[in-house]
Amino acid sequence: MDLSDLAQPADTKIVLVVMDGLGGYADASHGTELEEAATPHLDQLAAAGVVGLVEPVGPGITPGSGPGHLALFGYDPTVYELGRGALSAAGLEFDLEPGDVAARANLCTLGPDGAVTDRRAGRISDEEARAIVQRLQAAVSLDGVEAHFRHEREHRVLVVLRGPELDPRVADTDPQKAGVAPLAPEATDPAAKRTAELVAELDAQVRTSLAAEPRANGLLLRGFDTLRELPSFADRYGLTAAAVAVYPMYRGIARILGMDVLGRPAALADQVETARTAWQDYDYFFIHHKPTDSAGEDGDRGRKIAAIEALDAAIPDIRALQPDVLVVTGDHATPTQMAAHSWHPVPAVLWSERCGRDDVDRFGERWCRGGGLGLRPTATLMPIMLANAGRLAKYGA
Amino acid sequence: MDLSDLAQPADTKIVLVVMDGLGGYADASHGTELEEAATPHLDQLAAAGVVGLVEPVGPGITPGSGPGHLALFGYDPTVYELGRGALSAAGLEFDLEPGDVAARANLCTLGPDGAVTDRRAGRISDEEARAIVQRLQAAVSLDGVEAHFRHEREHRVLVVLRGPELDPRVADTDPQKAGVAPLAPEATDPAAKRTAELVAELDAQVRTSLAAEPRANGLLLRGFDTLRELPSFADRYGLTAAAVAVYPMYRGIARILGMDVLGRPAALADQVETARTAWQDYDYFFIHHKPTDSAGEDGDRGRKIAAIEALDAAIPDIRALQPDVLVVTGDHATPTQMAAHSWHPVPAVLWSERCGRDDVDRFGERWCRGGGLGLRPTATLMPIMLANAGRLAKYGA
Repeated sequence: MDLSDLAQPADTKIVLVVMDGLGGYADASHGTELEEAATPHLDQLAAAGVVGLVEPVGPGITPGSGPGHLALFGYDPTVYELGRGALSAAGLEFDLEPGDVAARANLCTLGPDGAVTDRRAGRISDEEARAIVQRLQAAVSLDGVEAHFRHEREHRVLVVLRGPELDPRVADTDPQKAGVAPLAPEATDPAAKRTAELVAELDAQVRTSLAAEPRANGLLLRGFDTLRELPSFADRYGLTAAAVAVYPMYRGIARILGMDVLGRPAALADQVETARTAWQDYDYFFIHHKPTDSAGEDGDRGRKIAAIEALDAAIPDIRALQPDVLVVTGDHATPTQMAAHSWHPVPAVLWSERCGRDDVDRFGERWCRGGGLGLRPTATLMPIMLANAGRLAKYGA
Repeated sequence: MDLSDLAQPADTKIVLVVMDGLGGYADASHGTELEEAATPHLDQLAAAGVVGLVEPVGPGITPGSGPGHLALFGYDPTVYELGRGALSAAGLEFDLEPGDVAARANLCTLGPDGAVTDRRAGRISDEEARAIVQRLQAAVSLDGVEAHFRHEREHRVLVVLRGPELDPRVADTDPQKAGVAPLAPEATDPAAKRTAELVAELDAQVRTSLAAEPRANGLLLRGFDTLRELPSFADRYGLTAAAVAVYPMYRGIARILGMDVLGRPAALADQVETARTAWQDYDYFFIHHKPTDSAGEDGDRGRKIAAIEALDAAIPDIRALQPDVLVVTGDHATPTQMAAHSWHPVPAVLWSERCGRDDVDRFGERWCRGGGLGLRPTATLMPIMLANAGRLAKYGA
């Protein structure tokens, strides 16, 4: 069965609000961040709607941002893959060409012994990082291949190699932890041997160029990838879709799926205003809220709770748009106890006139567990949203 | 894993009671129809048994009757397909031959402007419809192809084309709503072009023939289909199975799966009596209760509740047969708020000596949510029924 065979037009609007890294886990001393946050408006939504828990990729699987969002958009993340490099490129509106190899890079701090001391170069400022990236663009020169550097945000950088016979099957150089040296770029397929050598040469030139920098004196690469075509949101669902996101990567994934990426909002209030302004032009709005994940990654419980409460405060304005279907959930868990993404199920609330309310009147993992959506794969939310919007025809006679 | 490899004989009997369109959804003013019905016997069954919610085809997918029943019989409805035409033919004991194209038709009312004003011709009586169908059988004559018309029930008619080089890939002419004209029959594959033309000619002759009728002056066709072979119930499960159903379509699907279709029961009391009479001859009984769905489709909440209560009143007689496994559930939801099939999960109760009772003692969506069967695909009920009947061997050493 192919959902696109059932998709039918309707005069209805869907809003998906993603609190990045929303999920958490309770332990002996605390409930989850969401359970402990004061969320009167989300609780109200839970009372009028139906809640549950969702697993983005599969039981026990910790999702990256790409798979987490693909699942939210109804694309099985074990079938459709997106490399971090392609995501970053899309987010920066850097037009990848067939054959390009793109990677996501972090500016980092390397100690005198060559070990990583800070994977994020002390969360370097945008201004400082931009200058460094310009320096790299001027300094690095590879044999027969163009190297493009683009600054994303803070320590994040996009690196693209453009030239003949490149192959993305190169392992990450990012060791994903401090205290050890960056990994040497290794070809995971013999065909990528030359690409791995070019990456090693690039890395060496980067270190030379940044040797005098106190903090950003190295680059950690991950997610080597090429351009891929995914079926578009319009083709799969017949939806005219818009994304309202602050961070480039989420703008990128939306663009890859053929959504219009609206404006240049700086924060949540802008995002809601951007959606309001474009309300008549789209069937589907994806609103992405990043601060929950940033706080989670920093292990900052208080800040994650505050980020949840900030989103809660925006719910009345979002409901005032009068969407026919409203879903609030996350792309994965980022428990502050772990300061990292995790595999824990993520709470979800869905409201529509026909959602079939359950008996749950609070939004949080412990209450969602008994909700009407049950525990289900994240990708199943999309057909349920479409159904509630009257956008799926009956299957079979 | 193939269930047929595990099926083993046992001296046990299984009864599946299907309340068609049982499921509903709670909203701000009401619980579901089942929650609000007085169902002392089903509640007793829930208390002694195990309950849950089932999704017939998939999350968000609204099932037609074919997929809904295939799932109940343990056939994954995304793998096995049954067109409406083949179902109708089987229900009427019209022997489809290979190459025939069958469709389900509604007698309908067309207004002076050609738009459908009533998709069911005012729910025309059986007697009146039968006379009209006879007239069509005599009047319609196509070039090189036989056209067969058979009356089903009320406004429902089976149409079969028999002749060389027919192809079922013709789109429905039924627009599925009033206020618009019937659709022209379109070939969805070039090979069906001639068949589509024959359908158009048939439609024109039908209109001419029925022009003077006040209500039944048109025919809406859907579900063009050919004969298909499905693996039989006996082959898959080793069960000698019987169906006790009033409506032709459900008798039809049972016949397609190789069940014996018993008697000509007119209503529930007859059905139970029919099962009692044949009790010694079968391992498995499928008892189909239609009024829940009919009331749901009419948006008649009171009548749907009454239909549920009527089934509840028959439970003691069904239990008196002493089945080893008894399941009561539905093939899909038909919420009265929507007056149509829907995607909402359907409550299920299973009783056997070994079912593993949970703490739920009422039968209804809100209580089933916390039941021991959880939220699961409908097709998973069949192996659980077989297991409870001692009819599945151990898997693996």
